[in-house]
Amino acid sequence: PQSKLPDVGTTIFTVIGQLSAEHNALNLSQGAPNFSCQPALIDSVAKAMRDGHNQYAPMSGVAALRHALSAKVEALYGCHYDADSEVTVIASASEGLYSAISALVHPGDEVIYFEPSFDSYAPIVRLQGAKPVAIGLSMEDFSIDWDQVASAINSRTRMIIINSPHNPTGAIFTDFDIERLTALTTDTDIVILSDEVYEHVVFDGERHESMACHPQLAGRSVIVSSFGKTYHVTGWRVGYCLAPAELMDEIRKVHQFMVFSADTPMQVAFAEALADPQSYLGLADFYQKKRDLLAEALSESRFELLPSRGSFFMLARFSHFSPLTDDEFVLSLIRDHQIATIPLSAFYSNNKPTGLIRLSFAKDNDTLYEGARRLCRV
Amino acid sequence: PQSKLPDVGTTIFTVIGQLSAEHNALNLSQGAPNFSCQPALIDSVAKAMRDGHNQYAPMSGVAALRHALSAKVEALYGCHYDADSEVTVIASASEGLYSAISALVHPGDEVIYFEPSFDSYAPIVRLQGAKPVAIGLSMEDFSIDWDQVASAINSRTRMIIINSPHNPTGAIFTDFDIERLTALTTDTDIVILSDEVYEHVVFDGERHESMACHPQLAGRSVIVSSFGKTYHVTGWRVGYCLAPAELMDEIRKVHQFMVFSADTPMQVAFAEALADPQSYLGLADFYQKKRDLLAEALSESRFELLPSRGSFFMLARFSHFSPLTDDEFVLSLIRDHQIATIPLSAFYSNNKPTGLIRLSFAKDNDTLYEGARRLCRV
Ligand SMILES: CSCCC(=O)C(=O)O
Ligand SMILES: CSCCC(=O)C(=O)O
Repeated sequence: PQSKLPDVGTTIFTVIGQLSAEHNALNLSQGAPNFSCQPALIDSVAKAMRDGHNQYAPMSGVAALRHALSAKVEALYGCHYDADSEVTVIASASEGLYSAISALVHPGDEVIYFEPSFDSYAPIVRLQGAKPVAIGLSMEDFSIDWDQVASAINSRTRMIIINSPHNPTGAIFTDFDIERLTALTTDTDIVILSDEVYEHVVFDGERHESMACHPQLAGRSVIVSSFGKTYHVTGWRVGYCLAPAELMDEIRKVHQFMVFSADTPMQVAFAEALADPQSYLGLADFYQKKRDLLAEALSESRFELLPSRGSFFMLARFSHFSPLTDDEFVLSLIRDHQIATIPLSAFYSNNKPTGLIRLSFAKDNDTLYEGARRLCRV
Repeated sequence: PQSKLPDVGTTIFTVIGQLSAEHNALNLSQGAPNFSCQPALIDSVAKAMRDGHNQYAPMSGVAALRHALSAKVEALYGCHYDADSEVTVIASASEGLYSAISALVHPGDEVIYFEPSFDSYAPIVRLQGAKPVAIGLSMEDFSIDWDQVASAINSRTRMIIINSPHNPTGAIFTDFDIERLTALTTDTDIVILSDEVYEHVVFDGERHESMACHPQLAGRSVIVSSFGKTYHVTGWRVGYCLAPAELMDEIRKVHQFMVFSADTPMQVAFAEALADPQSYLGLADFYQKKRDLLAEALSESRFELLPSRGSFFMLARFSHFSPLTDDEFVLSLIRDHQIATIPLSAFYSNNKPTGLIRLSFAKDNDTLYEGARRLCRV
C-alpha cells in the first residue's frame, strides 16, 4: 500500500535514542530531563489514584485543572479564557497540535511555519491534504523575516505555526515579531497556532510573549502547552490548549475522537501543583543556571556556541573545524566520543546541512559537566 | 470558518454525563467502572514513578511491555507478533484507531463499518477525506449480513472495521463470521481494523475470535486493544496495537506525531500486571456475574432484555410500552427516574430511533441493584 508519509521515517529522537543506547553514549539529545520531579508531585498522583480518580476524565479535562489553568493564564498573561469552553486538557502538546491542525486545516489550505522547526508540524499538515509552507529563519540569529511571511501569505493561507521559546534554536519572540504578526493577520481569517511548551523557560529577565498577552492575537490563536516540560515529567502525557470558543469547539470535536480524554490521576495532581506558582515561576532560573553551566564548561572547546534566550536548547557550531554534514558529525560524536546530540539539519524538511548541532541542557549538572568534557575532546 | 465535522457534536458520553450530573442520576451509561482497580496496580505505578520512570517512553512503547504483550498474545491466540516491529503501545485505544485510520486510509477510499457502532469510526474516516460506508447489523440479533458486505466491497474499499465483543450490542463474532470475512478479504488489499478492547469479556464459555487466532486474517489486520477496560482504569490512557510490520511502519509514522508516546509509569505497571494471567483471565467471569445480576434484577421490569454475549453492555427494549424516540426516552429516564443510560440511536450515523437503550453493567453490585430498582419503576 502507498504510504501517506513517504518521506517520513522514524523521528530523529527515536533514531538518536537507539544509536546512543547502542554506543552507550551520554545523552544531551532529547529535551527530557534525566533528573527527578518533586516527590510531592508523585505523592499527589499516588493519592489521586488511591482516592479513586482512575476512570475517564471529562473529555475537556478535569474541572479543577481547567479552572486552575484559566486563573494562571489570566494572572500571568492577562487574557481571560473561559474554563468551560476555552480551556481543554490534552494528552500531550503533540496531541493538541495534531487536534488543532486536523480540526482547522482543510485540504488545499496552506500553513506557514518556520524552519528549523519541531519535526511534527509539516507531516501533520500534509496528512490533512494541505500544504506546509516553510520559511527559513535567519541563519545568523534565527529571527523571522516578516517580509518573506508577507509575500507567502495568500488567500489559501489558513494558519501560521509559531513556537517561542523556540525548539531547536532557543530564540524567542520580540516586540517587533508581535507587531509584525499582528499587522499581517489582523482582518484575515488566519489562525495562529502557538506552540508554547517552553513558556516558563525564558532567560535573562526577558518575558515570554504568549499570544495570551496580546488580545488582538489571542482572539485568533490556539495556544498549546505542556506540563511535562514544566514539571520535569515528559512521560506523563498531559498538556493544555487555549483558544476562543469558536475555534475550541472544532478542536474538541477532533480531540474527543483522537484520545477522548487525558490521564485522570495526573490531571488531578497538576491541578494541585498549579496552586503553588513557584512550581513554574522558578523554572527560568533553574534552566538558566544549567545553560550557563554548560556554556562555561564548553568555553575551552572548539565549538562556537550560539546564544540561547529560552527553551532547553542551545546550538553549537562545528563547521569551522569539520567538513562533515550534521548527520555525519553527530554520528561521529556518538561513535567516537560517546556523546549524543541532535543534528540541526533534522529540523529542516530538506535535511540541509547547517554546520550546527543542538545540545539539550535539561540534564543534571554531572551529566552536563561530563558531556562538556567529552565535547571538549573533539 | 467552515467545520470539517459539521454534523458532529459533543460525544454522547459527554452529553449524557453532563445531563446525569445535573439530575443527580445513577450512571448505567458509560463503560467506565465505578469500582476500584487492584491496589497492587496503583502501588506499581507509584513505585515506577519513584523509581524515576517519568520521562518519555520509547515511541513504540516500553520494551518490557511490548515483550509481555507479544508473549501474551501468542499464548492466548497463537499468532506471533515481533515485539520490536509489530507491537506498539498506544495512548488509548481511541488513539490507536485514529492513528491506524489516518495512516492507512487515503482520500477517496471507502471504509466499511457496521452500525450501530462506536461513535468515533465514521468521523475519523471522514477526516481523511474518505467515505465511511455503514452496513446495518440485523435488528434481531445484531449479526452481520455478509452478502451485504460482499456487495458493498469495490475497488475503493480500503478497510473494514470490526469490533467483537461489540459495543454497544454485546454481540460477538462466530466461526461463520470469520469464514465469511476470510473469504471476502483474501487476495484483496483490504485492511481489517479490529477493535478488540473487550477481548477478555466474552461470556458463557465462548471464545474471543481475535484476528490473532486466524493467520490468514492476522496478516492483513490491525488489532487495537486497551488496558483501561481490562484493569478497571479507563482514565489511564494506555492501550496496544498489533499489526504486521509493513502496516505497523505506517501506523507508527502517524502515532509518533500524534502523541509521541504513551504514559511511562503506567506502561511499567501494566508490564508487571501482565505477568499474572489471572489479571485478565478472570475478567469474563467477573463481568458475567454482573450481567446476570442486572438481568435477574430487571426480570420484573417492563423492559425486554436482549442477550449479551460479551462486552460491558446489554440492550433493553422499551418500544412495546413507550412511543418515545430513544433520545426522548433516555431523557425521561434521567429526569423522571434519575437513571442514566445511552440511547442506541446515538450509535447510528442517522440517529435513527430503535426502541432500545444500552445499559452498562461495569458498575459495583449496589449500583446495579439500585439501577435496576429505578428501571423497574418505569
Ligand atoms: C517528543 S520529542 C519532544 C521535544 C523534545 O523533547 C525535543 O525536541 O528533544
Ligand atoms: C470514550 S467512551 C469509550 C467506550 C465506552 O466507555 C462506552 O461506550 O461507554
